Amino acid sequence: MTDRTRLRDLTGPEIAARAANEVLFLPLGSIEQHGPHLPVDTDTHIAERFAEAVCARVGGLVAPGYAYGSRSRPISGGGERFPGTVSLSAATHSALVSDLVVNYARHGHRRIVLVNGHFENTAPAVEGVDLALERGADARVSMVNWWEVIGADTLDRIFAGDFPGWEAEHAGIVETSLMMHLDPGRVHADAISPTTVAITPPPYTVLPERPGLVDPSGVLRTAHGSSAAIGEAIFEGAVEAIAAVVRAEFGAAGGVER
Amino acid sequence: MTDRTRLRDLTGPEIAARAANEVLFLPLGSIEQHGPHLPVDTDTHIAERFAEAVCARVGGLVAPGYAYGSRSRPISGGGERFPGTVSLSAATHSALVSDLVVNYARHGHRRIVLVNGHFENTAPAVEGVDLALERGADARVSMVNWWEVIGADTLDRIFAGDFPGWEAEHAGIVETSLMMHLDPGRVHADAISPTTVAITPPPYTVLPERPGLVDPSGVLRTAHGSSAAIGEAIFEGAVEAIAAVVRAEFGAAGGVER
Amino acid sequence: MTDRTRLRDLTGPEIAARAANEVLFLPLGSIEQHGPHLPVDTDTHIAERFAEAVCARVGGLVAPGYAYGSRSRPISGGGERFPGTVSLSAATHSALVSDLVVNYARHGHRRIVLVNGHFENTAPAVEGVDLALERGADARVSMVNWWEVIGADTLDRIFAGDFPGWEAEHAGIVETSLMMHLDPGRVHADAISPTTVAITPPPYTVLPERPGLVDPSGVLRTAHGSSAAIGEAIFEGAVEAIAAVVRAEFGAAGGVER
Amino acid sequence: MTDRTRLRDLTGPEIAARAANEVLFLPLGSIEQHGPHLPVDTDTHIAERFAEAVCARVGGLVAPGYAYGSRSRPISGGGERFPGTVSLSAATHSALVSDLVVNYARHGHRRIVLVNGHFENTAPAVEGVDLALERGADARVSMVNWWEVIGADTLDRIFAGDFPGWEAEHAGIVETSLMMHLDPGRVHADAISPTTVAITPPPYTVLPERPGLVDPSGVLRTAHGSSAAIGEAIFEGAVEAIAAVVRAEFGAAGGVER
Amino acid sequence: MTDRTRLRDLTGPEIAARAANEVLFLPLGSIEQHGPHLPVDTDTHIAERFAEAVCARVGGLVAPGYAYGSRSRPISGGGERFPGTVSLSAATHSALVSDLVVNYARHGHRRIVLVNGHFENTAPAVEGVDLALERGADARVSMVNWWEVIGADTLDRIFAGDFPGWEAEHAGIVETSLMMHLDPGRVHADAISPTTVAITPPPYTVLPERPGLVDPSGVLRTAHGSSAAIGEAIFEGAVEAIAAVVRAEFGAAGGVER
Amino acid sequence: MTDRTRLRDLTGPEIAARAANEVLFLPLGSIEQHGPHLPVDTDTHIAERFAEAVCARVGGLVAPGYAYGSRSRPISGGGERFPGTVSLSAATHSALVSDLVVNYARHGHRRIVLVNGHFENTAPAVEGVDLALERGADARVSMVNWWEVIGADTLDRIFAGDFPGWEAEHAGIVETSLMMHLDPGRVHADAISPTTVAITPPPYTVLPERPGLVDPSGVLRTAHGSSAAIGEAIFEGAVEAIAAVVRAEFGAAGGVER
Repeated sequence: MTDRTRLRDLTGPEIAARAANEVLFLPLGSIEQHGPHLPVDTDTHIAERFAEAVCARVGGLVAPGYAYGSRSRPISGGGERFPGTVSLSAATHSALVSDLVVNYARHGHRRIVLVNGHFENTAPAVEGVDLALERGADARVSMVNWWEVIGADTLDRIFAGDFPGWEAEHAGIVETSLMMHLDPGRVHADAISPTTVAITPPPYTVLPERPGLVDPSGVLRTAHGSSAAIGEAIFEGAVEAIAAVVRAEFGAAGGVER
Repeated sequence: MTDRTRLRDLTGPEIAARAANEVLFLPLGSIEQHGPHLPVDTDTHIAERFAEAVCARVGGLVAPGYAYGSRSRPISGGGERFPGTVSLSAATHSALVSDLVVNYARHGHRRIVLVNGHFENTAPAVEGVDLALERGADARVSMVNWWEVIGADTLDRIFAGDFPGWEAEHAGIVETSLMMHLDPGRVHADAISPTTVAITPPPYTVLPERPGLVDPSGVLRTAHGSSAAIGEAIFEGAVEAIAAVVRAEFGAAGGVER
Repeated sequence: MTDRTRLRDLTGPEIAARAANEVLFLPLGSIEQHGPHLPVDTDTHIAERFAEAVCARVGGLVAPGYAYGSRSRPISGGGERFPGTVSLSAATHSALVSDLVVNYARHGHRRIVLVNGHFENTAPAVEGVDLALERGADARVSMVNWWEVIGADTLDRIFAGDFPGWEAEHAGIVETSLMMHLDPGRVHADAISPTTVAITPPPYTVLPERPGLVDPSGVLRTAHGSSAAIGEAIFEGAVEAIAAVVRAEFGAAGGVER
Repeated sequence: MTDRTRLRDLTGPEIAARAANEVLFLPLGSIEQHGPHLPVDTDTHIAERFAEAVCARVGGLVAPGYAYGSRSRPISGGGERFPGTVSLSAATHSALVSDLVVNYARHGHRRIVLVNGHFENTAPAVEGVDLALERGADARVSMVNWWEVIGADTLDRIFAGDFPGWEAEHAGIVETSLMMHLDPGRVHADAISPTTVAITPPPYTVLPERPGLVDPSGVLRTAHGSSAAIGEAIFEGAVEAIAAVVRAEFGAAGGVER
Repeated sequence: MTDRTRLRDLTGPEIAARAANEVLFLPLGSIEQHGPHLPVDTDTHIAERFAEAVCARVGGLVAPGYAYGSRSRPISGGGERFPGTVSLSAATHSALVSDLVVNYARHGHRRIVLVNGHFENTAPAVEGVDLALERGADARVSMVNWWEVIGADTLDRIFAGDFPGWEAEHAGIVETSLMMHLDPGRVHADAISPTTVAITPPPYTVLPERPGLVDPSGVLRTAHGSSAAIGEAIFEGAVEAIAAVVRAEFGAAGGVER
Repeated sequence: MTDRTRLRDLTGPEIAARAANEVLFLPLGSIEQHGPHLPVDTDTHIAERFAEAVCARVGGLVAPGYAYGSRSRPISGGGERFPGTVSLSAATHSALVSDLVVNYARHGHRRIVLVNGHFENTAPAVEGVDLALERGADARVSMVNWWEVIGADTLDRIFAGDFPGWEAEHAGIVETSLMMHLDPGRVHADAISPTTVAITPPPYTVLPERPGLVDPSGVLRTAHGSSAAIGEAIFEGAVEAIAAVVRAEFGAAGGVER
């Protein structure tokens, strides 16, 4: 059935009528191994769900994003050696974002929000927006990494002051809890190791990636202790935080000035 | 719930176990206006459904494709002036295909089928495969435009010898019938004009696209006479034809030789 | 001797005086095997002769094109495995067209016609025009594939209703007849096989190109039955059709509006 | 009629039989204003004639080059402001050379000579060869600027010790004499100014090119004193010098070692 | 005078003798405003000094880096609107790193350490290494952001447990203290505001950068409390940490295995 | 200590105050073997010293250049086979110049002088300026090769009419003398061969570079006879010549008109 907030469900004339007045959300994710307990589309799925939930709250249209993200790095996603991790080069990713911003703007979409679920997308996607602006795209674009806008106080409340920090949060307690809340049927809870990982990735880059940089499980810390309740609290906190960004930057109903 | 043929639903280790033995399907589509009666993701949706159906028949994995396709041309899709048509430049599209083939091949996926639903994707996607091979990707790749492999006899049977031809088939009787079969809730049957279009696009290119090249409806011929029954017959015919290509090129169970 | 319609024969000041008022024709071809009976520049030669003949009819200037075209595909040209086929990547081809359109437009040539003789040039050349427009080129450009504008009735008349269709027309009866008309001294009539080819290329892409996709002769169907008379009829029909396109898009004497 | 040294005149099978054993010559030129007395294809025409004459002397095949060259600079060609000067960006030019070297080498042409007639082509064309080698092209390539290999003693003899030097030789006494020898019907001898130019371009670059850098005639020094006899002497001297390079680098009959 | 650890001071033969046996250090920085109290080359100067100090400790060669870095972002460097901030696009930066790694590796430098002083360089520089490896560069490359390897305990000790964190550390207490230690003559201590900044950049991206995202001073937090003593302690701590990375990844004396 | 003409020493606000009124100098050099007697940064060092000296004479700011230059060629720098020669591809070099011109111009630097010390930089750097202008950079840029603006009379005077010419001047008497004047502590005078070189590079290109094209010393002619006195005379002559270019193109105090 047609979902009136899903751009892909609409016809051309329907989009034409709404382009100028509504914020456009583009979810960005990755196809990246997330340990033995989460599907490879975890980042993509989370980003899509955030985009939909924020859109439901502040209005707008959710456009198709793309599933693939920028190269995974050992410190933040385990790296490119793990099967299941299929990534774009930075140039391709930036070109993709640039083309989408240029073309949506050309049709009148002047307010665009990239809702990002994969850390390594940050630099190439923002570069892509820069490239689009250099090509003359007439739009304002925000890019939000959901984990960066959620408040410290929210995390303190959820984790009772014991939040372990975002470093090495990949297939860890936050992402796993989010998936338990959003899509429990695709979480293999029995595959979550009760102990923490044996190997912590070093805080620098080595290329070519050598064996031994990352725990063989592909998990960077631990997913032990995850729960749907934690996931729900984080989800609600981040949705509200992203919605606040949209309101602040683009106005509640869409009044845009540049 | 997890679908065992959807790559995005699997974990890294699950993919690792299957990469070498199974054909990988990548659906390619577009976000392109399809008249007042079809959603802009028509090409994408059809390609995804073909990939899933063929995969169900011959085995394999369906990987995430991407929704956006190459620039629409007036003669084949109405062109880039219509709102709702959001496209990639050829260089971006080729880079995207190149990166995907290189990276899937790197993890052992040696047999890849691009299932294409958007005419203008043909040249850039095939070029992308060439670029991947030049970068050393060790894979064999087939690209199938579903409308090119369906047999003339099948069309003769369905249309009682009166098939109008593929030229200008955009949001026409074939695509509309397919959507009536595959996703009737998103077809606005009442918006289908009972008469044919006033303007037929000329058989050459003019750039910048001038007004008047294409019928204002965005439909290139007519969707009148479409039906779910026609759609089902075409769908079944094309699924079988694509499956035959896969069997011919990659073997029933995956024995590959190069 | 100087030919007043050949841009390359003119001096800078002579071109300056004519740039704004005359249509510029750029022939596009290929260096591609055309079986054992035709030279590798067949597409280029035909495109050049069309450009000259149309120019003689409607006025204008014929600029140097370039001999090399985009990658040959098995289904339409036999593919890249055949010696004698030397092609450009799509990015190079598009960059070339983009540079030419930008630079001719910069000097005041506002009406440009690409006369194309090689099917696979279509997408990259049109993309190149798009890139030129994005770089700000102030020109209107038409691209004409001569075989797409010739009327069905003309073909019916020439072939007495038995025209075999354009699919797989490569070094076949049309191109061979054209060369018999335009440049008989370079046609090896004795090398034309009296029977049709053993292998018809499949209607999908396989890369890397595997042996056996195409008949070893490099001919996709047959050249048997070709004649200079057929060539002349096709040539005259297409020249008139291209001239009609030029008149329709650019006016008889060059009045341009955008 | 077929010329057995012109690659474009041959069929695929004929080229296949000769690729490995014969040197391939590619002439490079420009479309560039050459004052009021020479056609814009002067560089291209001269390069083509050199390639043909050397080929006649040492054997081999002359492949199609391309007419367009790299951006003209005021000091060496008058610059890009003059109508009739239509150039490629360096990236396009290098990509073109790279594609040609890669593809000829792929078919077994292992010895390639670029015969260059346009100064500004030098750096981009050589870069293109580098790019081809980096892509794995298995070939040895020489690039010869004909004016750089002609001996000082030859020039002394021709000019009786009074050769004015190559700086600012554009549409000057050498090129004009060559065209008087090679293609007198296209030289407008009456348009040659009897006096030298009023403006000598400065020995540094200014961009954007400002008015006044170059004499309005587009001639950098003077063509006065040109003659077919001088042209013939220079032509013969350079042909022999280029032939000597080919013999030295590739052997008389083609023995190649790397 | 020649410095035996500065590659640029050596002759070709001297470098040839040392390439295979010594680690090569490349400092990466930026030209970026650092408030009213620090020079725009702060990142570059710090990176160079780290490279020299580590090289003095573990041996090796310091190669010339380059002064310019990747685009500054409001959250981490104030952004591109501030005069004095002159940056490279990501594609240029990656191409630069790629070329350097390819070419140093070609001459036998197999162990390369990028010593980075500018946060935004991270993704493009690492991408550049990936591109070099894809081009076949035979080298192992580490990239170290000096602030990421310095131990938490060291910071605890220096700041007595009160380290404010790396977020928004731009022209703040750490960089200012480092410059007071390394190059006091270029620090305008009197221009350091005694109070913290009025505006904290938001934790998301907005493009085009709008006014008001960043404090007009260009400082993201505060430099108040900086001292040469703090700078010295941080410098020594980071030098030792980087040296430890080099020893761990490349061995004390250079034994490399891949 | 801060040098008020070194842009890198200034703060953002200081640069902002001067950008519009002062000429910006960018020195371009190379890391390239210069025989056994000169450091590999010879071209870079000379360019930097010229930029500083001219700036001292006519006012302005010296911005950081970059040490690496375009690929060395046998005829002009010995080529890429010599250890110590580390170069950029033309595309990278042009992109670098383009980014710098675009970004300096964006901040109001409208008059930019590239002071070049490496012959092979010429074409790629000038192309980079073209690319910047095509991207809309609002600046006027001069590029000066110091050896091209020094007067013939100056050379006559210095060399008593016996100047050997610029061809093959690489690590020869001019560059060696300049370094003896500018940085004597880094010249290994004892490594200068008293005899001329055994091999003179041929006046054409061969790729891949074969052994034997260049003298094993890496010197193209001879450095014998070099002296600090000659270096000083050349330096002073070229500084004055470059200063004259700046005054002629940009005015003594910076009045710019376009």
